[in-house]
Amino acid sequence: MIVLFTDFGIAGPYVGQMKAVLVRHAPSAPVIDLFSDAPRCNPRAAAFLLAAYVSEFPLDTVFLAVVDPGVGDKRRRAAVIRADGRWYVGPDNGLFNVVAMRARSLKWWDIGWRPARMSNSFHGRDLFAPLAARIANGEEPPGTQVPENERVIAGWPADLPEVVYIDHFGNALSGLRASNLPSHSKLLVRDRTVRYARTFSSAPEGEPFWYENSNGLVEIAVNKGHAGELLGLEIGNPVDIL
Amino acid sequence: MIVLFTDFGIAGPYVGQMKAVLVRHAPSAPVIDLFSDAPRCNPRAAAFLLAAYVSEFPLDTVFLAVVDPGVGDKRRRAAVIRADGRWYVGPDNGLFNVVAMRARSLKWWDIGWRPARMSNSFHGRDLFAPLAARIANGEEPPGTQVPENERVIAGWPADLPEVVYIDHFGNALSGLRASNLPSHSKLLVRDRTVRYARTFSSAPEGEPFWYENSNGLVEIAVNKGHAGELLGLEIGNPVDIL
Amino acid sequence: MIVLFTDFGIAGPYVGQMKAVLVRHAPSAPVIDLFSDAPRCNPRAAAFLLAAYVSEFPLDTVFLAVVDPGVGDKRRRAAVIRADGRWYVGPDNGLFNVVAMRARSLKWWDIGWRPARMSNSFHGRDLFAPLAARIANGEEPPGTQVPENERVIAGWPADLPEVVYIDHFGNALSGLRASNLPSHSKLLVRDRTVRYARTFSSAPEGEPFWYENSNGLVEIAVNKGHAGELLGLEIGNPVDIL
Repeated sequence: MIVLFTDFGIAGPYVGQMKAVLVRHAPSAPVIDLFSDAPRCNPRAAAFLLAAYVSEFPLDTVFLAVVDPGVGDKRRRAAVIRADGRWYVGPDNGLFNVVAMRARSLKWWDIGWRPARMSNSFHGRDLFAPLAARIANGEEPPGTQVPENERVIAGWPADLPEVVYIDHFGNALSGLRASNLPSHSKLLVRDRTVRYARTFSSAPEGEPFWYENSNGLVEIAVNKGHAGELLGLEIGNPVDIL
Repeated sequence: MIVLFTDFGIAGPYVGQMKAVLVRHAPSAPVIDLFSDAPRCNPRAAAFLLAAYVSEFPLDTVFLAVVDPGVGDKRRRAAVIRADGRWYVGPDNGLFNVVAMRARSLKWWDIGWRPARMSNSFHGRDLFAPLAARIANGEEPPGTQVPENERVIAGWPADLPEVVYIDHFGNALSGLRASNLPSHSKLLVRDRTVRYARTFSSAPEGEPFWYENSNGLVEIAVNKGHAGELLGLEIGNPVDIL
Repeated sequence: MIVLFTDFGIAGPYVGQMKAVLVRHAPSAPVIDLFSDAPRCNPRAAAFLLAAYVSEFPLDTVFLAVVDPGVGDKRRRAAVIRADGRWYVGPDNGLFNVVAMRARSLKWWDIGWRPARMSNSFHGRDLFAPLAARIANGEEPPGTQVPENERVIAGWPADLPEVVYIDHFGNALSGLRASNLPSHSKLLVRDRTVRYARTFSSAPEGEPFWYENSNGLVEIAVNKGHAGELLGLEIGNPVDIL
């Protein structure tokens, strides 16, 4: 299974162009859209978001993940990573840092391989999709394995106390894992105190609350309301633990 | 074929997470996105919308339909229905009531089966997707068949005289079937009288008109215009027959 | 491979309904979404956009392309085209004119075949999708081959100096091919002079620039900015070469 995680947007041709490459080069691999609207040009927030979603996918899943504001910059490396039995293909810009930090087993390859034709601006199609297809086909990463501790960026927090995604219902996902929070913590978000509720229906209507979402993240929501609009939330807003 | 009908939104990870479950548990079933933007948290409007689309799909199609504002509420039942040779999997909250009311043949199962792990907020992924995969694989519904007349909610109208969906072109679908309307009826929508036209090009430019859309519903449109914006339409607006 | 290019919108049931027809009638053909948000009701702009994307797809790809404001008009013909080894299925309204103008080899069929049931408003599902499935299955076009020069519309420019698409990042694609522009040309867009840059990172932050995008088109962008908003761009805005 190849799982797509990008900031390319839900409209436009980019995801389809990547899929066309995948279907040609790995025709038997199912392709799943996970996020096409990951935090735009924000590999750090995207890294915390991605890491919350990977464990529900089976071993040997290939995550083709592209949030890559530095595309075209010759200093940016390409990476293939194997972490806890799953593969990750994409730019080496921090996007896989949370997965790597949390992994019990980790291997890291710098990818020197380049396709015959590569645009300056769409490495998702030209470089990363063919790479992901090769990995899905069972090939070895076409690069050099490097000591993983040379690539993992030190100094990142274990969890990110910020809004990392706002969904269709207006619910705001943070980069905090609920299991790391003292039970019934209160949060401070945009000057509002936000209390815990186990479910939507146990929270007062119209009041913001937080709960553990279906992927273990602290999520800020409003019963019968739109938390994003009510609180004026944007990606990057701090979510402080009181 | 498994057909998805949800209010999860066209962005975000929810539809993809469901598809990942389907591809694992029913790998040979094609999966089709019908609506990802069904009327949000509105199973009643969604029920009339869904019912207009099912007959074009082949027998044995499995509709995985989730519009479920009561998710997490322990009183909400899960249902598998077989109506006129097609399957329906989702919450028992009225979402299948129009399909059931109109069915010539109908069977209904209460689903007691629960997965080993089930979140409070994402039964689409955790409960309904695995159920749909089992049905698509030809298994019996893992529950108890109940007399269908105990589950069909009485008192719903045959058609819903309301806007149930507004599409990308600004056309507003109502819950009225055109075949049930006196020919050339006039409608009253947001204080505007709306006349019948057979096709877009037969209506005056800029004037709202209604026509029978490609699924048999009364649809309000504007030739070379955007009915939703022109009339200020929202889901739930009454569509009165004059 | 069947590639979809429509203005049906990224939401709503229309693309899914077409895919359901394709999966029934050509179950072994992979289906790729290229554009669901092609220039709305604008076959001319759509024609220049489509033509920039076709060459990256393999021979025998079937493009199912529907931008069809004249749907329901009895004078509108349906077409199947074979150009440079790829197939095109859709309305004969100019949508394939740029592909045809640029083709080294070209065959054109008028399609007289009609399905048993055809709505007035959704020929994408009722007429063009079954046609595309037949072509993907290797059947001959069910119509009459006509001299291609009787169908290619004369007098169109080689390139279109207009904005034809604005993407998720705010980048504006024009109908100009960069290879036809004098190197380092300046452009005039909404009274702003726009200079060339090879990559995003080589352009000053916040300044609009143009570059050759990954499909060879002149694209107007802003390093760390949103060109569409900064310049107030809309589809159809002139892009003049200074």
